[in-house]
Amino acid sequence: LPVEAMARASQAALDGFGSTMLEYGVNAGPPLLLNWLRKRLVELEGGEVASDQIIVTAGNSHALDLLITLFTQPGDVVLVESPTYHLAIRVLRDHPVELVTAPADEDGIDVERLAALVQQLNREGKRVRALYIVPTFNNPTGLSLSDERRRQLVELAATEGILILEDDVYRELAYDAPAPPSLWQMAPEGAVARMGSFSKTLAPGLRLGFLTASRQIVARIVDCGLLDSGGGVNHFTACCVAALCEIGDYTLQVERLRATYRSRRDALLGALQERLPGEYRWPTPAGCFFVWLRLPAGMDSSRLLDVACANGVAFVPGRRFYLDGNGASHMRLAFTLYTEDQLADAAQKLGQAIRLLTPCP
Amino acid sequence: LPVEAMARASQAALDGFGSTMLEYGVNAGPPLLLNWLRKRLVELEGGEVASDQIIVTAGNSHALDLLITLFTQPGDVVLVESPTYHLAIRVLRDHPVELVTAPADEDGIDVERLAALVQQLNREGKRVRALYIVPTFNNPTGLSLSDERRRQLVELAATEGILILEDDVYRELAYDAPAPPSLWQMAPEGAVARMGSFSKTLAPGLRLGFLTASRQIVARIVDCGLLDSGGGVNHFTACCVAALCEIGDYTLQVERLRATYRSRRDALLGALQERLPGEYRWPTPAGCFFVWLRLPAGMDSSRLLDVACANGVAFVPGRRFYLDGNGASHMRLAFTLYTEDQLADAAQKLGQAIRLLTPCP
Repeated sequence: LPVEAMARASQAALDGFGSTMLEYGVNAGPPLLLNWLRKRLVELEGGEVASDQIIVTAGNSHALDLLITLFTQPGDVVLVESPTYHLAIRVLRDHPVELVTAPADEDGIDVERLAALVQQLNREGKRVRALYIVPTFNNPTGLSLSDERRRQLVELAATEGILILEDDVYRELAYDAPAPPSLWQMAPEGAVARMGSFSKTLAPGLRLGFLTASRQIVARIVDCGLLDSGGGVNHFTACCVAALCEIGDYTLQVERLRATYRSRRDALLGALQERLPGEYRWPTPAGCFFVWLRLPAGMDSSRLLDVACANGVAFVPGRRFYLDGNGASHMRLAFTLYTEDQLADAAQKLGQAIRLLTPCP
Repeated sequence: LPVEAMARASQAALDGFGSTMLEYGVNAGPPLLLNWLRKRLVELEGGEVASDQIIVTAGNSHALDLLITLFTQPGDVVLVESPTYHLAIRVLRDHPVELVTAPADEDGIDVERLAALVQQLNREGKRVRALYIVPTFNNPTGLSLSDERRRQLVELAATEGILILEDDVYRELAYDAPAPPSLWQMAPEGAVARMGSFSKTLAPGLRLGFLTASRQIVARIVDCGLLDSGGGVNHFTACCVAALCEIGDYTLQVERLRATYRSRRDALLGALQERLPGEYRWPTPAGCFFVWLRLPAGMDSSRLLDVACANGVAFVPGRRFYLDGNGASHMRLAFTLYTEDQLADAAQKLGQAIRLLTPCP
């Protein structure tokens, strides 16, 4: 984590911004940070972001919370990708909306079946208002939705008046090739709110992110009670990060993380290949922090967890990433926080745990 | 605003906390800050705060938003003190609850009439779930609720299962005598969530505050989706402020503000006395930032505002502080951001504006 860069940045920010850094911030966020983000997004995705299509947020969890508060009514259906980031489900559950699993196959959300589901829900008198999805380097699978499905999805959303809540937190951590453009970039105005974050690129403790959406959506957020009362969210930290980005430490840090995480991913995949031969399957994550491992049929990752923990290795069981109890045969392995030696050791311990739990033939 | 103190503090924090300052923070907030707050609250109010009765928040606007999200159901009635902080009303209006004015007289909320209103709402089949109030140095009136009414109010809340959302943002800015203990300190467990903030004592741009409530309420917040996903809110800033408090700069800053604001209040009150003789009335604010001025009968502060602005002085018209269109004859004057000379000049300009609008006898 970039402790020295943040120390330089906070000093530079307090020198440069002075007391404006401690006053109520502009509701949309510090213009210096917003302008830097707009340039960065052009580098990453190509398309322009207008100055009134972006705001600073207090991280993606808070952005999601705010979007649900402002853009849903009680009883609305919010569709949830499956599998998906398990703690986003918990944020959604704190609101009076009905969560429904969006149909998916191994390549991610299945838009044709989704369209049929939306029709069915509409016939039941339900209003399908939003869809939460991590289409780029999905958490937990690491997979990105294909270009064709992306186009189908944003078209469906625009036709049906569904707001896509695009969690785009891993865009910068692309290990093999640049990430595909966001749903927001390709969607008609108003169909997508894309949530980006500094949590994975700089530090999660900053609680800082951004959101791109239509002018109308951004205007509604900028004018909401929370921002009207408090000014820009997380203004002090936003000013520090603006300085860090201007100094150039952001790009250095992201390049460093990409190289480190790529090596760690490869180390874990190699160790899994070696230690878990046979019937185990996992897609290669081209970005993000995780390997989504599928156990042989009949083996339950929740049961395996106890044995694995006793053996000194842990993971998140697959069920957590589904609304409906699916996912028993999957597990999510995280590789970014461990050295290559630790990952090799972990794969070996996981293999031992699996053998301990496997009945003799 | 304490720019140099924040520079010292952020440096000390990054030196002391190192990378833990950039990782996900403990959901309840940095223990160093929580412990400092608990000691400070004992100095201010006497009563102890247990370690599981307090959490760090991202300021009172966010605390209010979170409390409404987690502790109300759609359609619940939320009572609102009258007059009250106008932007809190805007935060509440972003949620699917019904806002109802709590009865009040010139001394603040009238608990006997409130009890009757709650009975009536219950008879109508409504669930009265919460009450928003600024009982200590009210915004906009500057008045504090009497001890007797405080006792009646917390008793009513406990009996009726109403959660009091106590906005306690001005406690430290007591100019004449220490502030009365919070409703939270005197209430039975579970009846009050008290929101405190660093916005008025250090800087609003920090977006940092705290909340004291029952163990059950604090546990629910600590376990909510937003904190489960994001960790402690505003962790980086919270660590900086923890360092600032430990260094001792908080108490120095508060003493400085109290002295400055007291002089400014006295300057404005003196100037108003001199420039607006006759039928004008205002209570002396023993704390907070405002003088709540009442115009002679028949004069509307919203109409006066245009004339006053043209004459170089502004205020917030009284209607904004009511749900129901009352308050036309009042206006809120803010004194903390101006020098004594500026305040004298403003009072003179306000007097001129009033004379311009007053019909010849």
